[in-house]
Amino acid sequence: MAIVVNLDEERSKSRKPSLEALQRLTGDDLTAVNALILRHMQSPVALIPQLAGHIIAAGGKRLRPLLTLTAARLCNYRGDRHKALAATVEFIHTATLLHDDVVDDSDLRRGLATANAVWGNKASVLVGDFLFSRAFQLMVADGSLKVLDILSSASAVIAEGEVLQLVTSNDTETSEQAYLEVIRCKTAALFAAACRVGAVVADRPKVEEEALESYGLNLGIAFQLIDDMLDYSARQSELGKTVGDDFREGKITLPVVLAYRRGGTEERAFWRRTLEELKQDESDLAHGIELMERHGALRDTVARAAHYGAIARDALGIFPDCEEKHALLEVVDFCIERAY
Amino acid sequence: MAIVVNLDEERSKSRKPSLEALQRLTGDDLTAVNALILRHMQSPVALIPQLAGHIIAAGGKRLRPLLTLTAARLCNYRGDRHKALAATVEFIHTATLLHDDVVDDSDLRRGLATANAVWGNKASVLVGDFLFSRAFQLMVADGSLKVLDILSSASAVIAEGEVLQLVTSNDTETSEQAYLEVIRCKTAALFAAACRVGAVVADRPKVEEEALESYGLNLGIAFQLIDDMLDYSARQSELGKTVGDDFREGKITLPVVLAYRRGGTEERAFWRRTLEELKQDESDLAHGIELMERHGALRDTVARAAHYGAIARDALGIFPDCEEKHALLEVVDFCIERAY
Repeated sequence: MAIVVNLDEERSKSRKPSLEALQRLTGDDLTAVNALILRHMQSPVALIPQLAGHIIAAGGKRLRPLLTLTAARLCNYRGDRHKALAATVEFIHTATLLHDDVVDDSDLRRGLATANAVWGNKASVLVGDFLFSRAFQLMVADGSLKVLDILSSASAVIAEGEVLQLVTSNDTETSEQAYLEVIRCKTAALFAAACRVGAVVADRPKVEEEALESYGLNLGIAFQLIDDMLDYSARQSELGKTVGDDFREGKITLPVVLAYRRGGTEERAFWRRTLEELKQDESDLAHGIELMERHGALRDTVARAAHYGAIARDALGIFPDCEEKHALLEVVDFCIERAY
Repeated sequence: MAIVVNLDEERSKSRKPSLEALQRLTGDDLTAVNALILRHMQSPVALIPQLAGHIIAAGGKRLRPLLTLTAARLCNYRGDRHKALAATVEFIHTATLLHDDVVDDSDLRRGLATANAVWGNKASVLVGDFLFSRAFQLMVADGSLKVLDILSSASAVIAEGEVLQLVTSNDTETSEQAYLEVIRCKTAALFAAACRVGAVVADRPKVEEEALESYGLNLGIAFQLIDDMLDYSARQSELGKTVGDDFREGKITLPVVLAYRRGGTEERAFWRRTLEELKQDESDLAHGIELMERHGALRDTVARAAHYGAIARDALGIFPDCEEKHALLEVVDFCIERAY
């Protein structure tokens, strides 16, 4: 028997962090959320459920709604409101993705054709607007002005972050601070709101609300840092995604910010040519990655992510030990260890 | 003295209906609304107020916020909430315009370069999203779930209408019914919500709410019908706008629906070539207008608008005579007589 226990321990130690615990804990709730998403994306205008269904079904991890569901459970919430709010969060996220893909001229997302590649930019813009509006209708139906305030403010911050990203795009002089502000707005604000809402529906004290908000915010920053790192990593192609999308678009992410600032005159000229002027030839991406590796830019992007991940973990310190807490802590590890 | 009175009467009879009475009645309130709009479009991301300021300052008639302000006054409302809600309505409208211009690839709006022509489609999409979010934040600050329900539902209906328009675009078989559904959603729903909200803030009985909603809905349909007619009218160029924008885009509006259905085989082939296949040469627009005139399509579009205008007028029948009511009745005349 002792041997069996040891084997289990070994397995759990060596096992890579995943979203499994989170998914297992939220099983029925997530099924209900998926049903709500499906029901509320319906419209007599057939193109709307077609296009929305394409991007929503394309999957993704449903990370944000999982956070709302688990945060509510962590706060001992026993009602049903967290399900509609989790669906709301996913609608906001999906609307943002649709507009993102238009703005980035992307053809592929998660290995599938993007909605704009299939139905065109116009349809993606308008169906995105529809999903935004549906998100607000769902929140209004929930009826809490506090929740409405949190999620409508997050939406405005996301839009601000997207515009800020557009403005800093192709500018190799972008500072780490400016980059951080972009990802705090465009990604982390929704993670923060998704988590905070869990405490709000459970009517928990302010300190728990703030703890969950801080967890979400820092997790979101770590998540985006790793995402941006992966775009230059061989690990990305193992995950079935293309490498170098950000490079080809001239997006300025932390690996670039670090490599540019740590490089000499000649290297900076390389980054300006490829990312500002977008004059790229076939060997440029490989050369860029080489420069990043030379200067430890990818390694240090992961180190920065680990820093925010550590803050996220500590934010949960005030909650008592429970399965939900462990699952949320594992999300942090999962987000960072995707790097390897 | 009698002569002076007669002269005044003559002048008021011959004078074209305008928005003057509406603007005079709402003077200070509209100034406050413009200040609110200016304040709430601010952002540390400089491109946002620049781009939003361009389209908001470009003017337009502020027809929708004027309706909210006047509907509230008609209902004897004496508070301040109608101002922020009027600003909300204008934000929703402006966000829609930004996305419309992207979807239509428009270069000009009200004789000025469109935001997408100046700053590109990407910025227009994202700043539109920002203004949508700001609109929701303003509504949330108002704090009425009923108002939130009305305006968030209107937003979803607008988006549905825009998608429906995209789907029927370039389809000459579009029925009058389908066309009406598009304009009811994309234009009239916001007019209806803008007016209804006036009764809601004044806490008036349901019958008055519904009367104002019906007034707004039918006014909005009449407004859009005349707009679509003007696109084929010499009157449009007198107003300093270009003629034939809808034709060049292959948009199916009522003048086309009527001319197509009333025309013979050869004429239908003409409409299919120009609007479905978008194969147009220089003389086609003039020929199209000639066909519309031959079949009374423009005249009858105005007649249809007059029908909805009449419904809008009668909807106000339950309100006692007062300056606000007269101003709202004049808006109906103004919307229709723009045709001449």
